[in-house]
Amino acid sequence: MITHPAFLVEPWGVTEEGLQLDLLAQSESVFALSNGHIGLRGNLDEGEPAGLPGTYVNGLFETHPLPYAEAGYGYPEAGQTVVNVTNGKLIRLLVDDEPFDVRYGELLSHRRTLDLRAGELRREVRWRSPSGREIEVVSTRIVSFVQRSVAAIRFEVRPVDGRTLRVVAQSELVANEPTPSSHDDPRAAAALRAPLIAEEQELHGLRVVLVHRTRESALRMAAGMDHVVEDVDGLVTGAETAPDLGRVWLTGEIGPDTPLRFTKFLAYGWSSERSLPAVRDQVDASVAAARRTGWDELARSQREFLDAYWESADVELDGDGELQQAVRFALFHTLQAGARAERRAIPAKGLTGPGYDGHAFWDTETFVLPLLTHTHPDAVRDALRWRQSTLPAARERAEALRLQGAAFPWRTIRGEECSAYWPAGTAAFHVNADIADAAIRYLRATGDEAFEAGTGLELLVETARLWRSLGHHDHAGAFHIDGVTGPDEYSAVVDDNVYTNLMAEQNLRVAADVAARHPEPARALGVSEEEIASWRDAATDMHVPYDRRLGVHPQHQGFTHHEPLDFEGLEYPLLLHLPYFQLYRKQVLKQPDLVLALFLRGDRFSAAEKARDFAYYEALTVRDSSLSACVQATIAAEVGHLELAYDYFGEAALMDLSDLEHNTRDGLHMASLAGTWIAAVAGFGGMRAHRGELAFHPRLPAALARLCFRVRWHGSGLKVTITHTRARYELIHGDVLKIWHEGEELSVDDAVERSWSVPDPGPPPHQPAGRAPERRH
Amino acid sequence: MITHPAFLVEPWGVTEEGLQLDLLAQSESVFALSNGHIGLRGNLDEGEPAGLPGTYVNGLFETHPLPYAEAGYGYPEAGQTVVNVTNGKLIRLLVDDEPFDVRYGELLSHRRTLDLRAGELRREVRWRSPSGREIEVVSTRIVSFVQRSVAAIRFEVRPVDGRTLRVVAQSELVANEPTPSSHDDPRAAAALRAPLIAEEQELHGLRVVLVHRTRESALRMAAGMDHVVEDVDGLVTGAETAPDLGRVWLTGEIGPDTPLRFTKFLAYGWSSERSLPAVRDQVDASVAAARRTGWDELARSQREFLDAYWESADVELDGDGELQQAVRFALFHTLQAGARAERRAIPAKGLTGPGYDGHAFWDTETFVLPLLTHTHPDAVRDALRWRQSTLPAARERAEALRLQGAAFPWRTIRGEECSAYWPAGTAAFHVNADIADAAIRYLRATGDEAFEAGTGLELLVETARLWRSLGHHDHAGAFHIDGVTGPDEYSAVVDDNVYTNLMAEQNLRVAADVAARHPEPARALGVSEEEIASWRDAATDMHVPYDRRLGVHPQHQGFTHHEPLDFEGLEYPLLLHLPYFQLYRKQVLKQPDLVLALFLRGDRFSAAEKARDFAYYEALTVRDSSLSACVQATIAAEVGHLELAYDYFGEAALMDLSDLEHNTRDGLHMASLAGTWIAAVAGFGGMRAHRGELAFHPRLPAALARLCFRVRWHGSGLKVTITHTRARYELIHGDVLKIWHEGEELSVDDAVERSWSVPDPGPPPHQPAGRAPERRH
Repeated sequence: MITHPAFLVEPWGVTEEGLQLDLLAQSESVFALSNGHIGLRGNLDEGEPAGLPGTYVNGLFETHPLPYAEAGYGYPEAGQTVVNVTNGKLIRLLVDDEPFDVRYGELLSHRRTLDLRAGELRREVRWRSPSGREIEVVSTRIVSFVQRSVAAIRFEVRPVDGRTLRVVAQSELVANEPTPSSHDDPRAAAALRAPLIAEEQELHGLRVVLVHRTRESALRMAAGMDHVVEDVDGLVTGAETAPDLGRVWLTGEIGPDTPLRFTKFLAYGWSSERSLPAVRDQVDASVAAARRTGWDELARSQREFLDAYWESADVELDGDGELQQAVRFALFHTLQAGARAERRAIPAKGLTGPGYDGHAFWDTETFVLPLLTHTHPDAVRDALRWRQSTLPAARERAEALRLQGAAFPWRTIRGEECSAYWPAGTAAFHVNADIADAAIRYLRATGDEAFEAGTGLELLVETARLWRSLGHHDHAGAFHIDGVTGPDEYSAVVDDNVYTNLMAEQNLRVAADVAARHPEPARALGVSEEEIASWRDAATDMHVPYDRRLGVHPQHQGFTHHEPLDFEGLEYPLLLHLPYFQLYRKQVLKQPDLVLALFLRGDRFSAAEKARDFAYYEALTVRDSSLSACVQATIAAEVGHLELAYDYFGEAALMDLSDLEHNTRDGLHMASLAGTWIAAVAGFGGMRAHRGELAFHPRLPAALARLCFRVRWHGSGLKVTITHTRARYELIHGDVLKIWHEGEELSVDDAVERSWSVPDPGPPPHQPAGRAPERRH
Repeated sequence: MITHPAFLVEPWGVTEEGLQLDLLAQSESVFALSNGHIGLRGNLDEGEPAGLPGTYVNGLFETHPLPYAEAGYGYPEAGQTVVNVTNGKLIRLLVDDEPFDVRYGELLSHRRTLDLRAGELRREVRWRSPSGREIEVVSTRIVSFVQRSVAAIRFEVRPVDGRTLRVVAQSELVANEPTPSSHDDPRAAAALRAPLIAEEQELHGLRVVLVHRTRESALRMAAGMDHVVEDVDGLVTGAETAPDLGRVWLTGEIGPDTPLRFTKFLAYGWSSERSLPAVRDQVDASVAAARRTGWDELARSQREFLDAYWESADVELDGDGELQQAVRFALFHTLQAGARAERRAIPAKGLTGPGYDGHAFWDTETFVLPLLTHTHPDAVRDALRWRQSTLPAARERAEALRLQGAAFPWRTIRGEECSAYWPAGTAAFHVNADIADAAIRYLRATGDEAFEAGTGLELLVETARLWRSLGHHDHAGAFHIDGVTGPDEYSAVVDDNVYTNLMAEQNLRVAADVAARHPEPARALGVSEEEIASWRDAATDMHVPYDRRLGVHPQHQGFTHHEPLDFEGLEYPLLLHLPYFQLYRKQVLKQPDLVLALFLRGDRFSAAEKARDFAYYEALTVRDSSLSACVQATIAAEVGHLELAYDYFGEAALMDLSDLEHNTRDGLHMASLAGTWIAAVAGFGGMRAHRGELAFHPRLPAALARLCFRVRWHGSGLKVTITHTRARYELIHGDVLKIWHEGEELSVDDAVERSWSVPDPGPPPHQPAGRAPERRH
């Protein structure tokens, strides 16, 4: 019997030996394939057993009413929920007269591997049917990074008991699959029970296309499949359709050397505007293109795409095979979530599961985009263009809230606010500064002038306007932002949240600079010199509270005067055991907030302040959010607590592979996955770019012999190798790079090496009782 | 055509001449009859047209799930909603072959009078049927103060066109009447569509009893009727039942001098525990008792009950007939809401309509009970015993919230928290101090020792425990209460709300005193000397924030640092036009909060502080709550703004008679009605009893020639008459009274007269643009 952890430790793959039915939903998330447009959960080919069937196309959602027992002005009325679309992964088998189902007969061996270099999910099964026939099934699945609308499955079945075998393979498209509801609200659950209305079925040979539209949101989608079958004597094929079904069947007698072997090409498309024939034909064309490309070329181009990615993105760890695997797993899934999203959101779960209703949050800008900025920047440009495309909804929201500029949603699929609890949703305005921060980070890392004058300028201007209207000057001229919620969700609706104020300060200041640099496009957005000056003034006057008695920054005005939470005997996560009102009024944090400011606005804190603040909040942070460990790892490393940083790094890295929060079944935690990279590169690498210059303060925990990572900066590739006491900076392509190492400016045209040192961190900080991270060694 | 205002000005009644169909729902509330146990809206006898049919028995409710799009720990799961029970008011008429319906034919005259001394609703109609027959209908309705379960209708119809007439009268009980839903949530609306399940129908002669129970809450109720008919030649009668119908019909030929005249006796009863036969028989017995009493005696005892009330409660105003009527209307309806509630809640709307789901709030203790304390104190004792009876639910709620003692609900019918928006519900813990305050007020006014050692002690102890666990000491030893919501609903979840802290201070201090005075019952409640000391310490250390720069008390910590709301171009009430998040973060008040503290804890503020605080908050208070005007009237009078006080007095008094908030249709505003008395007695009378001694600081606005009111104090009756410059204190019954007049102690055994003076109030305060109260003269 295979027990948890479920996966073998290996450098370039994730392999499950055997099949743990009780972990099926989790492994479906881990083995999900996606290119950011199509997402296929790692469901078994034969459909059942399944943890949570899931097939997604990015942006396709259904709406449902949001219920309120006590309504309020400005509450969003409609929710958006990701739809499980037509399942094209299905290939069922009839072996003699018995269905291939691992729950019956005997599973002789089962092995699934997610190959991080090939970008394939491979499965090899040996199974004995209840009547005693033994077969081998081998399938390989690709969701193409190169052909965005295309996925493909290579499928092979053969008898392994020496005798010929009668088989029927049914390769299907199934719409409106039953899935367990994740909604308490019966109206939302009802809306999602059968969200797709059949519009047309097309059938030509072994090619089937099904067209559906969503009932309420009226989005039209099509799914298509075609098949290339290798010759088998006497093979009979056929196809048929029904409103929610496309079925191609292949039946024949196969032998050990004459297996049934075929490739299933899949394509998906959707549109909110295009006509039925247009959407149908688009998918037909994608299927035809895939078929012309063929399996071998799809697989080759997939590997080529990934080779390029690893070349510019790989992180190597010597001394911890488990984390080496985890960090590559994280890099792979982050790429999958963002590579071809192309002006759609990157959801909190990517396209790996229905968690959080498929919504995108600030997670994307603050945790996912940093990785992509330095490894695959085009995806960042597209992600920010998606935000720009939602500006009409964000401007409308700001107006409804009686604010200027744009108020981006706390959670959304298409752009409209879907958060039904405003103190932890709408009030968390920092999402706007986080979007601006992502744009600023992208600009600093790429120098993309066209983006700066276009998307960047518009995002910065509209968010600066928001902040100017959200804040106000007091009698002494200080600028305050009252009544908002910071990153920590165990406080809400507070005055002068330090994180928010500092991020807004940067937002206002950079918006002023960028608008001044691009006067014409700025004028086109209605920006005047008076307005620019008002942003600069607000930034200059921005209030940052400080508690002189304790010598620390309060997370927000008054926070350090609150009663500390008594952690004795509490159960976690606290939000399932304590009411919000008790959490909000106590000194307790779900996730880093001020400590995140120490990271993202590290230029505004001295080293001594960082050390004191980190220790203070460390004792109050329970890490009930997966957005915690990577940030704590990063600042722990900066202030010198290297072993603690390593423990947090481990926690972030294993969030999904070890299912630490017990909800990997609903999809992977993209922010924590990408945060693993942050912990490695910004934590141990000490990489920062506060003023637009690339700087490093290397660190290395005792357990690692070497850390090596690659980052992109203004088109050049830099490889950084950290060993104990030494750091080596190497230009792998592009122009000479100016960087900073521990405050020393270096010019890297070939390779430079320097020693590094770590400050004395003082005594180790402590965490709330029972909430210290697990020690890695 | 009769236009608004709808009612004639008269001293002892409220009369509507004509019938304004567009104001039907409002007049049904104004003409509602109740004794605190049974409530009958002033629906027309014939049932239709109706604004909002309504028949209520106090405490009978249906439960329904409370929906949350985003759930949270400790959110109440079930709502409670008052049920429109079996309608026994119905008497339909068939005139020749046409139904009597004022919408058809011609309404020749229509007059309804609520007689405040007789406690009757009288109606006189002359109507010409579509076929030209003219009839007169006279009905009189009583809900008995003396026989708690009983109501009665005296009904008479005659032809007035000189000819005999064939009539059929159908006197009915109808269950599950259709009513318009007030619920947005379709599940709640569905639950209330037909909430009563028929259990039994009993029929004997002209007596019918229907037994039902509520579907989800499983409460059993019975409604019964019997009839005494005056002899008419050839009258034929009969009766029949169906599951939701009891019908008695009377038919005959009537002439101008031989009208059809009968009395319908009604009885209601319900129980959560008693068996069907028990509830049925109880109502049968009540009907029999009413029938034996007879109409004349019911009417006589009703007047006698009210004579006694007016003797000890009347308020006389010379110089403003409209307010004279309004203040008596207020006294009458407050008595109706509380007189016979007897250990059930007094809801915010009394039993006059379904508004606020029939819930009781802090309104009862803070606004309604003061009036009853000084006019009908037994009702206060009962109301507080009801709170005591809900202690099991309140203790359970405290435990769920991780608090000690009892946490009374923000809104409820039976005692469980029904508030679905915690920042303005559960977080408004001041309701607990308000209940304690009501107990303290009752004890001071009555000296009821038995109550003090029983109900009073238990309420004080359990609320003191709550406060002790809600607050905490800071490093300097000050006691803070963080993260709660005060009375003003345009702020929420704040630290050190002054009103809450001062009310909690009193709660803790008096609980300590009362527990020390009654050591044995206190010990039985587990109170130790250590615990008493901890209450005294917390009270002594209670923090009260003060803004030295502005010289005013902030409503809560940080309030005066918030941005003032820009009132330009706003629409009211603000909560329908601005999101909570904008209201919470700005300096704007829905209703007095700090100013309510100036009233209820006036002992803690100097006269100069009161004047400054009042002026400061006056400029920020928009009075979107009906709990505003009476409090502002009271403090305006105290600080010397007498004309402003008078304007607010007028607003409070006319809230329902002029439908100022456009929701009188859903029921009367009991708190504003009772607040009218507060404005008169505590405002112009200047009555306070902060330390248990009765004190007066008389005031009189220019428009009034004389104000005279009566209050009860330790069993004695005191009549206070205020004219310009003089105040006269007269003992009307009971023992000699010690009182204070402008700081001078007086002993009143017959009558004492003194002059009075008013401080110079300084310049008039201003209100938000457009929100000054209407000038009365």
